[in-house]
Amino acid sequence: MLKLDFHPAGRHFLQIPGPSPVPDRILRAISYPTIDHRGPEFGALGLKVLAGIRQIFKTEQPVVIYPASGTGAWEAALSNTLSPGDTVLMFETGHFATLWKKMAEKLGLRPEFLGLPGIEGWRRGVQADMIEARLRQDSGHAIKAVCVVHNETSTGVTSDIAAVRKAIDAAGHPALLMVDTISGLASADYRHDEWGVDVTVSGSQKGLMLPPGISFNAVSPKAIEVARTARLPRSFWDWEEIIAMNQTGYWPYTPSTNLLYGLSEALDMILEEGLDNVFARHQRLAEACRRAVRAWGLEIQCADPSVYSPVLTGVMMPDGIDADTVRRIIYDRFNMSLGAALGKMKGRMFRIGHLGDCNDLTLMATLSGCEMGLKLSGVPLAASGVAAAMDYLAAHASPLPLRAAA
Amino acid sequence: MLKLDFHPAGRHFLQIPGPSPVPDRILRAISYPTIDHRGPEFGALGLKVLAGIRQIFKTEQPVVIYPASGTGAWEAALSNTLSPGDTVLMFETGHFATLWKKMAEKLGLRPEFLGLPGIEGWRRGVQADMIEARLRQDSGHAIKAVCVVHNETSTGVTSDIAAVRKAIDAAGHPALLMVDTISGLASADYRHDEWGVDVTVSGSQKGLMLPPGISFNAVSPKAIEVARTARLPRSFWDWEEIIAMNQTGYWPYTPSTNLLYGLSEALDMILEEGLDNVFARHQRLAEACRRAVRAWGLEIQCADPSVYSPVLTGVMMPDGIDADTVRRIIYDRFNMSLGAALGKMKGRMFRIGHLGDCNDLTLMATLSGCEMGLKLSGVPLAASGVAAAMDYLAAHASPLPLRAAA
Amino acid sequence: MLKLDFHPAGRHFLQIPGPSPVPDRILRAISYPTIDHRGPEFGALGLKVLAGIRQIFKTEQPVVIYPASGTGAWEAALSNTLSPGDTVLMFETGHFATLWKKMAEKLGLRPEFLGLPGIEGWRRGVQADMIEARLRQDSGHAIKAVCVVHNETSTGVTSDIAAVRKAIDAAGHPALLMVDTISGLASADYRHDEWGVDVTVSGSQKGLMLPPGISFNAVSPKAIEVARTARLPRSFWDWEEIIAMNQTGYWPYTPSTNLLYGLSEALDMILEEGLDNVFARHQRLAEACRRAVRAWGLEIQCADPSVYSPVLTGVMMPDGIDADTVRRIIYDRFNMSLGAALGKMKGRMFRIGHLGDCNDLTLMATLSGCEMGLKLSGVPLAASGVAAAMDYLAAHASPLPLRAAA
Amino acid sequence: MLKLDFHPAGRHFLQIPGPSPVPDRILRAISYPTIDHRGPEFGALGLKVLAGIRQIFKTEQPVVIYPASGTGAWEAALSNTLSPGDTVLMFETGHFATLWKKMAEKLGLRPEFLGLPGIEGWRRGVQADMIEARLRQDSGHAIKAVCVVHNETSTGVTSDIAAVRKAIDAAGHPALLMVDTISGLASADYRHDEWGVDVTVSGSQKGLMLPPGISFNAVSPKAIEVARTARLPRSFWDWEEIIAMNQTGYWPYTPSTNLLYGLSEALDMILEEGLDNVFARHQRLAEACRRAVRAWGLEIQCADPSVYSPVLTGVMMPDGIDADTVRRIIYDRFNMSLGAALGKMKGRMFRIGHLGDCNDLTLMATLSGCEMGLKLSGVPLAASGVAAAMDYLAAHASPLPLRAAA
Repeated sequence: MLKLDFHPAGRHFLQIPGPSPVPDRILRAISYPTIDHRGPEFGALGLKVLAGIRQIFKTEQPVVIYPASGTGAWEAALSNTLSPGDTVLMFETGHFATLWKKMAEKLGLRPEFLGLPGIEGWRRGVQADMIEARLRQDSGHAIKAVCVVHNETSTGVTSDIAAVRKAIDAAGHPALLMVDTISGLASADYRHDEWGVDVTVSGSQKGLMLPPGISFNAVSPKAIEVARTARLPRSFWDWEEIIAMNQTGYWPYTPSTNLLYGLSEALDMILEEGLDNVFARHQRLAEACRRAVRAWGLEIQCADPSVYSPVLTGVMMPDGIDADTVRRIIYDRFNMSLGAALGKMKGRMFRIGHLGDCNDLTLMATLSGCEMGLKLSGVPLAASGVAAAMDYLAAHASPLPLRAAA
Repeated sequence: MLKLDFHPAGRHFLQIPGPSPVPDRILRAISYPTIDHRGPEFGALGLKVLAGIRQIFKTEQPVVIYPASGTGAWEAALSNTLSPGDTVLMFETGHFATLWKKMAEKLGLRPEFLGLPGIEGWRRGVQADMIEARLRQDSGHAIKAVCVVHNETSTGVTSDIAAVRKAIDAAGHPALLMVDTISGLASADYRHDEWGVDVTVSGSQKGLMLPPGISFNAVSPKAIEVARTARLPRSFWDWEEIIAMNQTGYWPYTPSTNLLYGLSEALDMILEEGLDNVFARHQRLAEACRRAVRAWGLEIQCADPSVYSPVLTGVMMPDGIDADTVRRIIYDRFNMSLGAALGKMKGRMFRIGHLGDCNDLTLMATLSGCEMGLKLSGVPLAASGVAAAMDYLAAHASPLPLRAAA
Repeated sequence: MLKLDFHPAGRHFLQIPGPSPVPDRILRAISYPTIDHRGPEFGALGLKVLAGIRQIFKTEQPVVIYPASGTGAWEAALSNTLSPGDTVLMFETGHFATLWKKMAEKLGLRPEFLGLPGIEGWRRGVQADMIEARLRQDSGHAIKAVCVVHNETSTGVTSDIAAVRKAIDAAGHPALLMVDTISGLASADYRHDEWGVDVTVSGSQKGLMLPPGISFNAVSPKAIEVARTARLPRSFWDWEEIIAMNQTGYWPYTPSTNLLYGLSEALDMILEEGLDNVFARHQRLAEACRRAVRAWGLEIQCADPSVYSPVLTGVMMPDGIDADTVRRIIYDRFNMSLGAALGKMKGRMFRIGHLGDCNDLTLMATLSGCEMGLKLSGVPLAASGVAAAMDYLAAHASPLPLRAAA
Repeated sequence: MLKLDFHPAGRHFLQIPGPSPVPDRILRAISYPTIDHRGPEFGALGLKVLAGIRQIFKTEQPVVIYPASGTGAWEAALSNTLSPGDTVLMFETGHFATLWKKMAEKLGLRPEFLGLPGIEGWRRGVQADMIEARLRQDSGHAIKAVCVVHNETSTGVTSDIAAVRKAIDAAGHPALLMVDTISGLASADYRHDEWGVDVTVSGSQKGLMLPPGISFNAVSPKAIEVARTARLPRSFWDWEEIIAMNQTGYWPYTPSTNLLYGLSEALDMILEEGLDNVFARHQRLAEACRRAVRAWGLEIQCADPSVYSPVLTGVMMPDGIDADTVRRIIYDRFNMSLGAALGKMKGRMFRIGHLGDCNDLTLMATLSGCEMGLKLSGVPLAASGVAAAMDYLAAHASPLPLRAAA
């Protein structure tokens, strides 16, 4: 019989860019007894998480919570707003942008895939000016939506969504703005309303620190309006009935009760810490990580410092080094999981996740594991990244928020 | 702050026909730390649950596990096999059959809804002869699929699926047979292969004793073949890529890792007890429950004893009694949740769940709560249903399977 | 490998008079990560539970919490206050009073064991007049302490402690009053200060709903004074250093951190419900249980209605019936644990626990299991105890305290 | 209301020399539902843990498990074997040896406290030759027992117990050998039978990775024989009745059921890994830690390399640095608990725990936190201890034991 809870002695370090490590508080919350999703207690839970999640998206509009993992929320965004054969403008920021585009094709849409040549687009994020230029050409408004990824999990680039909004407005184009911040939400600042996003897609297993299994669509009034006439067939993903029933805290079909318990706990944790403090903590850890990479003499995948991701850092390998071999050595010897390179980057880099329930010493453990693993893999290192990270963290350390007992 | 784990003193009795009470073993399993769904440990988990779930469906064909609740698996069944405008023959067994039909309409299909008049169809289950007659008329084979519900959660009727298969064969009709056994699986005997079902839809929160959040499609080779040319747009629900990646225990997108931990534990529990023992336990509890209802002098919703459900029993109220008031009295005073009447039956009956992690004394608690609540609601009772149930259970009691220490 | 969490399907009914069923909330609390018992967070926990437990004992004096099970707290009471060879007056209320007396002998004390003849003392509780008479004879004050059991777990008798206090005062005797309410605390009303008790002994696994493993001494100023000169050797149990360190929330040696987490949660639960409501709930369930026993035509072990226990009910078997055989049949067939008869009563009765996290339907399940088991054991029953209990409970039902969502 | 599970974001690092971090597997095990400690399932649990714990002590003699924390097991060792006024020879290895001696005094024994002058004894462990010399003087055999601490938790010295045995034998002295390995068991090699120890005392919250609350006495036939005539009063601690009832897996009084669940799980984990692998892992981490301390240019508290502890390392501060200030800075800024200096060493050193569920990256996190904290505290460091530790660990890394899925 498979012993699910067997591991080598000591704690596993799950330093992939999601699923992020689920804190004990949340694991305990998802183990509360399942209740009747039509009973009065459930309604109170529903109203609480629906109100709380809006604070995370920084929106006063509805946020639809699906009992489905993040890929489903991508499909929901498309199928609620578009009709067969519609053209959508998507920007190639990396592997996940590419997958979203493939989904659009499978659903019978016509995605146009904009991007920088080669792997440049995978290192620099969304180019708002390219979007603006393309929209200006589209005088007939054939393009129905612009779809971009906020935080590209495959590369470690966090694109400027406000700039995309400005580009669309500058072009005077009516296309919807749809944004995937599956791995950005609750780690990187995100402003659904202020940035004028029409549909924001997100998931549970990243900054929200939950296991995978629920996902989100934050929707603007314009998106809801457009949905009335959009003709892609949809039922499970259909916003209308969900938003209507959510008024009282319920869902038209069975929600994922136990993950909603976890969401409730996650919201408490994040809002107790304060969103700004959460973002600052991520920025601090990300900067320490990048200093380590630079000290090693390795290249950071993201080539544009203005769009460094606070969620993860892509570390490029020198020629002749297979990143997956490095990852395997680290996994086998140091009990740590790192993210593989995906798609175009396969084997050329690995990804360090520093999101969610992460702190200084967890990052130091992570960087130590990387440094030892890189050396064991024969990667020549210019200096100790661990030392560089410690210098930064120590220089910017301050007392943590008061504990219960302090 | 909402205190999610607040309840009146003592254990809540969740006696709705699903979600069923999640056993502690499974709640602990779903609280294992989330792991990398691309790492080697996950692959082992994936292979185990994929093999195990096939035993539950009694199939050697693929079972697709979705990180989405059961309604999603309905959509998956339809969207993988059908094309816009296709006619499907559906049978009105109750509220859930009706919802599935509405979904078919929303997806752009043309469901034809067969059924007995009035509420008769809600009391007698699928009439295979009506299906056969209709298929014989369809000499042009316009009907692409026959869709029926195995265990109608809204009524407590478990239809004869083998008879439907025979009806289709007798009519010599090529339509696919698609069956919803969301609330039947692992409680009532179900034989995907032997009964020649093409797509079986199921969910986690009933006989599998898991929280809601994952769902299933068991698929026949014919269904897979048909899917190649079916033209409803689909991506998230698409079988092909999932089945391909499942060969090594992985999924194309992020699966619901923690619910798969729970599934692994549930499979261990069910297969340790033995499927036949599980079914016998359900039959025994259901019979005791029906004897109680009859002793009370109340009517069982299912009017055909050959299709009594082992999962739940619908109890009809005398005229002038609002079933929801009875339920509320029982909830408020005795800390027990019962199932409401749905759709056509609204207010006229309530549903007692006796599925999943249920045993004799839990059923006795349940029936005691009902008997007290019925009396408090002014329902005249002919005799004690509790006494009748005890007579049956005591007369058919035998030592339970050996414990670890016996 | 022993599979600790294997059980027959469905929930086990643990209806012994302790350990009582531990609520999920408390099981989750004891699984919080262990912390440094010298760190600041621990101090806050310590102060909280020390303040809260005093409310349960109804005392403003110190309550010492031992990282040891209840038997240890018996020893602590004796060894802190007495010297080798001291005479103590103990009253035979049942098996546990007898065990405490044996402990006194082992520790080199001279217990004098007062009691009614035969099994009468096991059916009627402490006779305060006999204590008074004995103390009046002891003009030389050789008796250093009077030791009585408040709630005799072996019989289901809850003695009148205030009467014992009055008896001692009436006799003008300086002996300490030491009371064991291991199974009474937080189920039956108990007033350490008002009743003038010098040392109250209690444990965790009964009304406090915790697993076994921690125990208590509530101590009066007089007891503390006496302890200064008492000469039984003691170190682990010594009050002085513990009480001193408890001022800041710490212990001189390692406390049982995780059970203190559980205690913290138990205190929240009990004080949220309200002690008076907790007591009323116990009285209500006990009365329903006794009505069942009487309806069966069986004898309640406690022969004096003024001292019926709200915690448990002893049920006497007719001649020729071995109570342990009945218990075994119930355990094997209905997955319920009942309490065995102990000592003098061996085989002649069984004990039904209805304490702690218990409610109406759990009691009904329990009584149903008993009724079926008694019949299967060939015990002739006059009428249905289950029916009698339902009549009582339904007649005295009222809406439960509001839930979070009501 | 105190929120027990509040912490700053990210995992707390509990790097004190016990309680050690409790692995999730064990936390889940201690949250299994409490069962009847007189029922058949409990007996199987009892027999399993009693057999398993003997393997850990390397003994075929009885191991008594107390539902009490470790200090209780000290008292048990003394009170079972000695009589009022008995002389015992104890060796001053540090703070815990001193506390045990104080306990002996409180219990009415006459401890003779042997040791090196000043803090030398706190840096070098037991000197077997001094014991031999003292025993040779005791021709009248007034000394009834030699009591030594195996692993001094206050200093990080693991004394040579076999040498003490040899010293006693060389002196031809009949004194019992009693050893405290509360913090050594299951981390450092320990051989109760082979080393001829009469009573070994241990606890749960160190190498066994459990929360505090249960403790142990492993007892030799000679100790059991001596106990027959020893006259210190005892009841709760008395071996005889416990050992007798343990034959069938039960205890004379209520055991700490939920911590025994944890012990069962801990035994599975340790025996799966293999005791020798567990010891090697501890040695490896300890050596890495010491290399860090040396690189920093700081002194290791243990001055004799032959008795370095695999459990913890004491780090001495330069003059003018208060170790508790350093600890506080590390706690406040880096969310890590280190052990304080105790007794004679107060403020002069801190203790790094690297025991139990610890691995390479957890140690690296720990050393990083120390290095940053030392710098922030103004301690001049010769070089990076973190770098030195990484060099050692990387040079001695090998693939971890296969996982379930490898």
